Amino acid sequence: MKLTKLHDIWAAGKPAVNGWCSIPSTVTAEMMSLNDFDSLTIDLQHGLVDYQTALTMLQAMNASGITPLARVPWNEPGIIMKLLDAGALGIICPMVNTPEEAQQFVSTMRYAPNGSRSSGPTRAAMIHGANYHFEADDALVSLAMVETVEALENVEKIAATEGLSGIYIGPSDLAVSMGYAPGLDRKEDDVDAAIGRILAACKASGIKAAIHCLSPEYLKSAHARGFDLATLGSDIRLFDMSIKSQISLARS
Amino acid sequence: MKLTKLHDIWAAGKPAVNGWCSIPSTVTAEMMSLNDFDSLTIDLQHGLVDYQTALTMLQAMNASGITPLARVPWNEPGIIMKLLDAGALGIICPMVNTPEEAQQFVSTMRYAPNGSRSSGPTRAAMIHGANYHFEADDALVSLAMVETVEALENVEKIAATEGLSGIYIGPSDLAVSMGYAPGLDRKEDDVDAAIGRILAACKASGIKAAIHCLSPEYLKSAHARGFDLATLGSDIRLFDMSIKSQISLARS
Amino acid sequence: MKLTKLHDIWAAGKPAVNGWCSIPSTVTAEMMSLNDFDSLTIDLQHGLVDYQTALTMLQAMNASGITPLARVPWNEPGIIMKLLDAGALGIICPMVNTPEEAQQFVSTMRYAPNGSRSSGPTRAAMIHGANYHFEADDALVSLAMVETVEALENVEKIAATEGLSGIYIGPSDLAVSMGYAPGLDRKEDDVDAAIGRILAACKASGIKAAIHCLSPEYLKSAHARGFDLATLGSDIRLFDMSIKSQISLARS
Amino acid sequence: MKLTKLHDIWAAGKPAVNGWCSIPSTVTAEMMSLNDFDSLTIDLQHGLVDYQTALTMLQAMNASGITPLARVPWNEPGIIMKLLDAGALGIICPMVNTPEEAQQFVSTMRYAPNGSRSSGPTRAAMIHGANYHFEADDALVSLAMVETVEALENVEKIAATEGLSGIYIGPSDLAVSMGYAPGLDRKEDDVDAAIGRILAACKASGIKAAIHCLSPEYLKSAHARGFDLATLGSDIRLFDMSIKSQISLARS
Amino acid sequence: MKLTKLHDIWAAGKPAVNGWCSIPSTVTAEMMSLNDFDSLTIDLQHGLVDYQTALTMLQAMNASGITPLARVPWNEPGIIMKLLDAGALGIICPMVNTPEEAQQFVSTMRYAPNGSRSSGPTRAAMIHGANYHFEADDALVSLAMVETVEALENVEKIAATEGLSGIYIGPSDLAVSMGYAPGLDRKEDDVDAAIGRILAACKASGIKAAIHCLSPEYLKSAHARGFDLATLGSDIRLFDMSIKSQISLARS
Amino acid sequence: MKLTKLHDIWAAGKPAVNGWCSIPSTVTAEMMSLNDFDSLTIDLQHGLVDYQTALTMLQAMNASGITPLARVPWNEPGIIMKLLDAGALGIICPMVNTPEEAQQFVSTMRYAPNGSRSSGPTRAAMIHGANYHFEADDALVSLAMVETVEALENVEKIAATEGLSGIYIGPSDLAVSMGYAPGLDRKEDDVDAAIGRILAACKASGIKAAIHCLSPEYLKSAHARGFDLATLGSDIRLFDMSIKSQISLARS
Repeated sequence: MKLTKLHDIWAAGKPAVNGWCSIPSTVTAEMMSLNDFDSLTIDLQHGLVDYQTALTMLQAMNASGITPLARVPWNEPGIIMKLLDAGALGIICPMVNTPEEAQQFVSTMRYAPNGSRSSGPTRAAMIHGANYHFEADDALVSLAMVETVEALENVEKIAATEGLSGIYIGPSDLAVSMGYAPGLDRKEDDVDAAIGRILAACKASGIKAAIHCLSPEYLKSAHARGFDLATLGSDIRLFDMSIKSQISLARS
Repeated sequence: MKLTKLHDIWAAGKPAVNGWCSIPSTVTAEMMSLNDFDSLTIDLQHGLVDYQTALTMLQAMNASGITPLARVPWNEPGIIMKLLDAGALGIICPMVNTPEEAQQFVSTMRYAPNGSRSSGPTRAAMIHGANYHFEADDALVSLAMVETVEALENVEKIAATEGLSGIYIGPSDLAVSMGYAPGLDRKEDDVDAAIGRILAACKASGIKAAIHCLSPEYLKSAHARGFDLATLGSDIRLFDMSIKSQISLARS
Repeated sequence: MKLTKLHDIWAAGKPAVNGWCSIPSTVTAEMMSLNDFDSLTIDLQHGLVDYQTALTMLQAMNASGITPLARVPWNEPGIIMKLLDAGALGIICPMVNTPEEAQQFVSTMRYAPNGSRSSGPTRAAMIHGANYHFEADDALVSLAMVETVEALENVEKIAATEGLSGIYIGPSDLAVSMGYAPGLDRKEDDVDAAIGRILAACKASGIKAAIHCLSPEYLKSAHARGFDLATLGSDIRLFDMSIKSQISLARS
Repeated sequence: MKLTKLHDIWAAGKPAVNGWCSIPSTVTAEMMSLNDFDSLTIDLQHGLVDYQTALTMLQAMNASGITPLARVPWNEPGIIMKLLDAGALGIICPMVNTPEEAQQFVSTMRYAPNGSRSSGPTRAAMIHGANYHFEADDALVSLAMVETVEALENVEKIAATEGLSGIYIGPSDLAVSMGYAPGLDRKEDDVDAAIGRILAACKASGIKAAIHCLSPEYLKSAHARGFDLATLGSDIRLFDMSIKSQISLARS
Repeated sequence: MKLTKLHDIWAAGKPAVNGWCSIPSTVTAEMMSLNDFDSLTIDLQHGLVDYQTALTMLQAMNASGITPLARVPWNEPGIIMKLLDAGALGIICPMVNTPEEAQQFVSTMRYAPNGSRSSGPTRAAMIHGANYHFEADDALVSLAMVETVEALENVEKIAATEGLSGIYIGPSDLAVSMGYAPGLDRKEDDVDAAIGRILAACKASGIKAAIHCLSPEYLKSAHARGFDLATLGSDIRLFDMSIKSQISLARS
Repeated sequence: MKLTKLHDIWAAGKPAVNGWCSIPSTVTAEMMSLNDFDSLTIDLQHGLVDYQTALTMLQAMNASGITPLARVPWNEPGIIMKLLDAGALGIICPMVNTPEEAQQFVSTMRYAPNGSRSSGPTRAAMIHGANYHFEADDALVSLAMVETVEALENVEKIAATEGLSGIYIGPSDLAVSMGYAPGLDRKEDDVDAAIGRILAACKASGIKAAIHCLSPEYLKSAHARGFDLATLGSDIRLFDMSIKSQISLARS
């Protein structure tokens, strides 16, 4: 199994920059893949993308060597397994609130005897090599999202889930759950403390810590703080920001 | 958040006419939206439509100001939240048989602390305004389908679900569940009594009552009876009726 | 080569009813094909359909045995040959104004030595049989549209084009060209006389006469007048008519 | 309801050859349908196909009279009912490990009072006839996959599920679950014994036994052994095999 | 016919800002339409868009009131008429090098007796009103691209073409034709003089002058110089610029 | 500009094996690209593929390093330039019968001052490098199809066209033009002599000679005879052959 950028970065002990694809388009996905990301996540939850389009986006970004990940709409085996079979090398699973949910997620990601994933890696075996079945359980990245107060209370147990690769913090939902308005790059002390607690739980369990960021500055601070992966906004935010700034200049 | 036609109609205390989109096409969806409906429901259950196409249909009907709704295949958080994020302003959820199922549905529709909806209204915020997060829980329409004998027995409790906007009657499934052949615009006394019971439960709980109709005549009688929303067949029935009547004339 | 309905109808000396597909959808195309048409034309000119979608529509209507035709955007070899290779059994070509244009159109439709069609009937040979190459020139229907004053002046020469199957009248463009507003089912004496002249030219040359109609009544009068094929409006008109009449009843 | 090939074959007491469609394409699906299969299964689990594309594939294979089946990603009512409404005449459901899961699957496949399927057979009624509702419960094929050690232990109870049409063996997952590498056409004694036990359970309950095969030879041996349906690899394997053998010859 | 933003801007004697859509996506098209452009051009020439996708993009941007334009791949009647029928309110035609080519282009844009456009405004009449046929010739914007030395030599005659709305300068091709490397926002004296000559020709003929720009600064200078419409780069440039600047900050 | 396999093979003086993609699918295109071809041609003429799908197929095969070519429906600038801008590194143009047509084709392929190609290599520049404009004229492969008696008579002049990369023989159309049934791998003496004359004309002009073959054996003989590129059937033939042989074995 040919290792991709995220595996290399983590093998080298460095933090990764993840890109985020919410636009259902092979063109925007390929454009993202031509830039300096370590991994790219196709978002099937809040992104405007469903499976059939995600497949073509995975194909369009394949030449880049960037690690393809996907966020699923919910912790359901059907869509998780479909995306893995389509070649995604990792899954970000939203709203994992309990250790049981974390365990179910991890089980879905792994073949027997480690888990309950059904065998049939149609495109994955084509792209990642004939030995895929035997290496997948180790190579695939499983990131459980901790993004509610309930999950926060369970974070140490979630982090201890056998086979879980790491935890991905959704700062916006976490803050909403704590009574704040949605948004990334949080400044509130208690939200920041919660983020710290999650990070500490990951470190204690020896798993990866990941977080969704908006600005490059916050992303760099997340790396400095010890996060192993930080996401740079999303394709939609990048595009929207650029339209608005340029049209504003043109209209000034 | 800019209010759309259904909100206006209901604010004025009038009953609404809902259109039904089962054809997976932006062209037929846009054509429907150019007519005098108050809301249009994209049917992802029995309709031939899935998420990716539903997104483009939502876009194609956006200019009309008609309220976009969607019926989901099942009471599952993944697809409900995806459709809301895509801009649907309401969800019709099939086969809600118990108050627990109703509660789960409503929870999926609402942000913390009211519910468990995950924040990330990608297109919804673009289209419905920057304040979407704070107004969505109030503005979104949640209609639980009561369409089995079991649901009928629970209808008063279902209607009392905190946060539920209303109940949508599926007369065909309800009649099937009562031992009849499928079909709309029911004439049987016991089916009609069941419809009356559901209507009464809605009124008692102060929520909206809605029903799927076939003919304009039945629709008008439903309005007269007190229903707040009545659906006029479906795009497929409208199209099929027209083909058959015109070809029949041409062949006569 | 298995003969389809239009071939049978014409072999029996009867006039045909043609349906018209302007909506880019396999669902509406299949619905049309489940009704009593002899041929169905996918409209790539004024319809909202392009090649890739037309292919799937041809597939969706294949079970019906109705003869699949296509109208091309313009008298260009590329798209005509693509549609034939995709399985269309006839082409309606717009704006054929001169005998030279008619000849070029016919040449495009036929293999050497009869014409200049390139060999490679990818789907056509799958669907219509291994002997396709040898029967296609005879079986394919080529209908040149006469729809301008210039074409009218040339109609006898156009009708005499070696290998042309027939002429398809576009009454709306013809009337526009004669100084009237667009529309079908013309009542003006001079437009009607022009239609009569075209019909006579077809009869004189022993080729088929076809015309686009709107109402079943006009269609029947066209059959009575001697037209070999008459089109019943379009899917868009059928659908729109039905929406408008039913919503009007519901709102009354 | 017009019976299709698989129904005819089974009515005649003969074993069926099933084809497998993993490529999301109407063209490859139609090509498969032009060959001598009794049924064709669109694979929405490990195949690269999702609902919207599956719909067009069902349309493209409709002319053939071959029985259209679908394998779903998971035992979930939403997608099962959608595929039935789209015209699939049977469902293969993966990972049915307990009699309860089998019962839930069967319930999803059948209308009240036999089950919980919601009524609204949008395309199914168009294609399979106006009497669809009343014949569907009998005509639809429900195949539960037995492909784990847990399911094997429960196989007699699963086979006894009221209304279940048969069991479909996934030899690769079954072997993985038993500690072997994935793959079809198993040779191991214990895997073969497991297959024999499942076959015997089907015979004892008077339901169909089906199995996924790779080579024509193994398929024939499965038929000889008493299987009622055997699948011939998949479109992807057939295509890949041919590319590799021909390019190898060309390079030799 | 409801007038759109570009018509209003020009009626008010003000210069317009045009956006450019090269990504084949309803999502990016809709995002563009939510911003402060006066017109949006879907580029079917160098953009990665073809007709069927362009149709859905036109639908997705319809709510905005921004004037929808399209650039066609070549001066061919088929695609020009298809885009007008789909609702585009103007066409930018590349590589118009002679007055004859300009005349052919204008003829394609207009109904008889002004031109040779075929009548059948399928979506255009739905969206732009029942009176479309009678207002289209005046309302539609026809912009001929002058972008070669040959065209430059003919520019005064091209500008004098009866019925032509204006000339759209392609500075990159024009510069290439003059011996320079491709690129926008030209600084060379002779290219600038050529641009001035074209602008003067437009003013002399009383038609609109338009130009493709890259930076907001150059766009503003074009407005200041007297151009009636100036394009702000493209969606692809806007997106790419933003990815590169943000990832660069994140990596710094 | 990163050179791809075909460039390398030809630089090494070796003959190339070309694959042929007629199925409109990213999955089959990617599968082809995972095998040992030097170039892959997406067939927009007789293949079932149009531009929008071709774009996604180009993306799906990009990781392979195999040279992407396309065959266009006809010698028209619009589609040729669109495919080059989408990243195709060469074009096969059908039915080039005269030196004038060859010259027009070559002009379309090249930028000023060599030709008339419009500048705007949207995806091509992303994928093939920032220096694309300056290297494209040399790197792009232009293959004119000689496949009629008329073209044969002109072949020496066609071969002498300044800037033409080579001639691609369509043996089936050529044979049809000579009075034979269609088909590849011709055995007739006069067809073979015609092939020899074309080959000789290529050698005399120092350009590449290419030919469409069916069997690996004929392909190898073509290489032995001096052809620089030979095509191995098509994806459709490969797939069909495999279905038929395996189902035949299963049914035996």
